[in-house]
Amino acid sequence: MEPVKNFPRLCRTLGYEFNNLDFLKQALTHRSAANKHNERLEFLGDSILSIVISDALYHQFPKATEGDLSRMRATLVRGDTLAKIAQEFKLGDYLKLGPGELKSGGFRRESILADAVEAIIGAIYLDSDLEKIRIILLEWYAKRLEEIQPGVNQKDAKTRLQEHLQGFKKPLPVYQVVSVEGEAHDQTFTVECRIDGLKDAVIGVAPSRRKAEQIAAAQVLELLKK
Amino acid sequence: MEPVKNFPRLCRTLGYEFNNLDFLKQALTHRSAANKHNERLEFLGDSILSIVISDALYHQFPKATEGDLSRMRATLVRGDTLAKIAQEFKLGDYLKLGPGELKSGGFRRESILADAVEAIIGAIYLDSDLEKIRIILLEWYAKRLEEIQPGVNQKDAKTRLQEHLQGFKKPLPVYQVVSVEGEAHDQTFTVECRIDGLKDAVIGVAPSRRKAEQIAAAQVLELLKK
Repeated sequence: MEPVKNFPRLCRTLGYEFNNLDFLKQALTHRSAANKHNERLEFLGDSILSIVISDALYHQFPKATEGDLSRMRATLVRGDTLAKIAQEFKLGDYLKLGPGELKSGGFRRESILADAVEAIIGAIYLDSDLEKIRIILLEWYAKRLEEIQPGVNQKDAKTRLQEHLQGFKKPLPVYQVVSVEGEAHDQTFTVECRIDGLKDAVIGVAPSRRKAEQIAAAQVLELLKK
Repeated sequence: MEPVKNFPRLCRTLGYEFNNLDFLKQALTHRSAANKHNERLEFLGDSILSIVISDALYHQFPKATEGDLSRMRATLVRGDTLAKIAQEFKLGDYLKLGPGELKSGGFRRESILADAVEAIIGAIYLDSDLEKIRIILLEWYAKRLEEIQPGVNQKDAKTRLQEHLQGFKKPLPVYQVVSVEGEAHDQTFTVECRIDGLKDAVIGVAPSRRKAEQIAAAQVLELLKK
């Protein structure tokens, strides 16, 4: 049975009145529910979000390095931020899911919600233009853009992995350098990360130990999302 | 000694006349050469390129899946495509590099060239607007967009790794499944990839063997770029 969907209310929440409501409906349709689903819209929305946030950060932080800009952008556009926005919009009430996905919880559900936000961004863009969706996105992100600062608030993969495990009251991950190759100024670090419940260590390779640990942690996070 | 830089000629090649030539000069300045370098412009250019190509592909291929669209986008925006565009523009003649980078060759040089293309995209955008840079990018990419097809021409990481090694007359990579975990419909494959000259195997983890191999190959390619 399909829930009653109050689209006018959702449009008020989003701050956008669709000319063609089909775009919105498609954006809310997961691939498990129908042939005309939201994945192509999500493909578009992902790039639109990126340029709008990049442009905003570029002008908001005229002195920030590219590294800081990239980290801030990653924080603002990544899955769990989008999932939070989806929850603020109560998108879960509007999603059209197939029978298999209706029961899905946790990470899986979060990622479906995050994808739907990107799809809605694509839908508004197609229904209007880039300037319109830019204005709307800057509304959606007003508080987050106000709060973000270079070098702070950007939780890296190690921090997120640690917090995730703590949330489930599990032991902390263990990182270990497996090998260091190359000459002093041009080294390659191989680091493994082990967590309770994963039989194999996951390996990260990078020119610094810190970076290799981050890569390994990010891979473990990906595994945990499954 | 700095080479003579014929900016008007470069502008003709790019198809864009700068109002403020400082944007172009900054886009051509590598971080090794000056404090005011091109990394922030590159940050912007990356997102601009992504939305312009995404939008073009979305409309050009109304039936393509999100997966095909993503693969085509990845092909069109990745480093070696941008490096080829840089070579078409003879950007190497205009780049401002520090003494350490002047000698750099191979992969390193290609990546500097690719970054400069992204920075020029950011520079044109700041000097004009998104519609202008969109028109210019569609010019730059006209032939590539005409030729690209869903499901073909998108060389994946394994193919690129193989071609790279063949180019250096080295043996082909060896892939091996290290472990398979989980139940039949929810498995996790750990695959290692070994190549001549790298002591350690590089590991990829994914829900399918094919994908795990691709991840491992992509990581090896990253290592080879250093």
